[in-house]
Amino acid sequence: VGLLGGSIGLALRAAGFTGRLVGIGRRMSSLKKALAVDAVDEVTRDVGAVAGAQLVILCTPISQFGPLLERMAPALKPGTYVTDVASAKVEVVRLAGRMLPRDVHFIGSHPMAGSEKAGVEFARADLFQRALCLVTPTARTSAGTVRWVRSFWEVLGGRTVVLSPQRHDELLARVSHLPHAVAAALVALAERKSAIDLAGPGFADTTRIASGEPGMWVDIFGANRKAMLRATDELIDELKRFRGYLNRKDMHALLKWLNARKRTRDRWVAQRYRKQVLPP
Amino acid sequence: VGLLGGSIGLALRAAGFTGRLVGIGRRMSSLKKALAVDAVDEVTRDVGAVAGAQLVILCTPISQFGPLLERMAPALKPGTYVTDVASAKVEVVRLAGRMLPRDVHFIGSHPMAGSEKAGVEFARADLFQRALCLVTPTARTSAGTVRWVRSFWEVLGGRTVVLSPQRHDELLARVSHLPHAVAAALVALAERKSAIDLAGPGFADTTRIASGEPGMWVDIFGANRKAMLRATDELIDELKRFRGYLNRKDMHALLKWLNARKRTRDRWVAQRYRKQVLPP
Repeated sequence: VGLLGGSIGLALRAAGFTGRLVGIGRRMSSLKKALAVDAVDEVTRDVGAVAGAQLVILCTPISQFGPLLERMAPALKPGTYVTDVASAKVEVVRLAGRMLPRDVHFIGSHPMAGSEKAGVEFARADLFQRALCLVTPTARTSAGTVRWVRSFWEVLGGRTVVLSPQRHDELLARVSHLPHAVAAALVALAERKSAIDLAGPGFADTTRIASGEPGMWVDIFGANRKAMLRATDELIDELKRFRGYLNRKDMHALLKWLNARKRTRDRWVAQRYRKQVLPP
Repeated sequence: VGLLGGSIGLALRAAGFTGRLVGIGRRMSSLKKALAVDAVDEVTRDVGAVAGAQLVILCTPISQFGPLLERMAPALKPGTYVTDVASAKVEVVRLAGRMLPRDVHFIGSHPMAGSEKAGVEFARADLFQRALCLVTPTARTSAGTVRWVRSFWEVLGGRTVVLSPQRHDELLARVSHLPHAVAAALVALAERKSAIDLAGPGFADTTRIASGEPGMWVDIFGANRKAMLRATDELIDELKRFRGYLNRKDMHALLKWLNARKRTRDRWVAQRYRKQVLPP
């Protein structure tokens, strides 16, 4: 029950959910914080508590999914919905497919909300408002499970998109995972010669995600390794293209390159904003 | 008189300046906008208007500095202060040194404030509050000129740092110019396979500066070409280091790499915040 798990609890309450919210965790100190901010109604360190659940949401780093699913599996009742909030999906779906009983309804989710700040103390009831919530069924997932879990995220305020786990990981490497590695690489360059002392608001935004939880990101990179390696190679090629323009003083090509990127981004921002203007 | 020039006018007024603010520009339509938002008291297309000035601030893209200084030079009175707001300094200082009379007090400035939005309609009186304002004297600059121009930026709310034009360009390549190129490169990757449709708030922040004015940035890259080529090579090396860790599944090294960057950035944010807590 960290930032995401806690925000799910708060958002469910805000949406009028009247059932019981149970926080399962490893450390009582963290669970007590979740109680203190009213993110859950009760807490336990016993994974067996999933026995009574209608919906179970895994909100741990991906490296804990294996052991967790193994311990959960015997306790889950038939017909229980199980999903997660991890940022990589192929690996998660593979694990769940292998470890969960067939009569449990599993589907991967990736709500694109969060913060570089970790911990339930940063949880917010409106975290999922207008957030993209990606839902990744496989050939084994029933249409009913897709519908049910989409509705769940939409009740919390999210806009859902359905795509395969493979396509999810391929696309997210480009727009989320690689940008994280790049932000860290830019910080590495800024460390040298104390350049960071002269960094301004542009640098602050470009590198914000480099303040994210390293353990979580190592898991994501590991779980999406092949797509990340490909995306990194593509980025290096793109930087070499930029370098080539500058090296041969081809300012016309450089301008064209920057113009095209500005147009793409501005169009995306405008569209995103338009989609997000929902009734309050 | 765009975003920066207009903000200087508004900030001077807010600071209690009672003298005359004259906006010089090429297009009357833009100058009229500057008048409409009260950023200046009068406007003209005649560069000769600098004849009456105590301080002249160049706020154009760097590619216009040559022709502009050439036309200004004969009109400037001895003892006039001249500075600028460009993001690259070696080239600007070289041009000013060659084209301005010796009895004019030139010094390069780089107020690290701005926006990805261009135009005087986005000008703000508080744009320079707590902003780093870099001032780049050469061996020819008098101590009095350094003091005078530092005071100027401090009156507008800035925190000044004095360094050589060479050091400025070397460090800014790392923390400002290269991040701009990287943001554009990330947008290029996101364009492919329509990945951008799944981009979230992290991507929005990481690539914000890619919405900046391409013409201005081509000038900056061109004026800081050598430092940019070096910084691009260093970044490619850093990305290859990341790629190496991931390729050989050295998750321990990857974690160490991310941890160090997070620590650096968090320390910077904390320090920056501390430095910025000034009396209102």
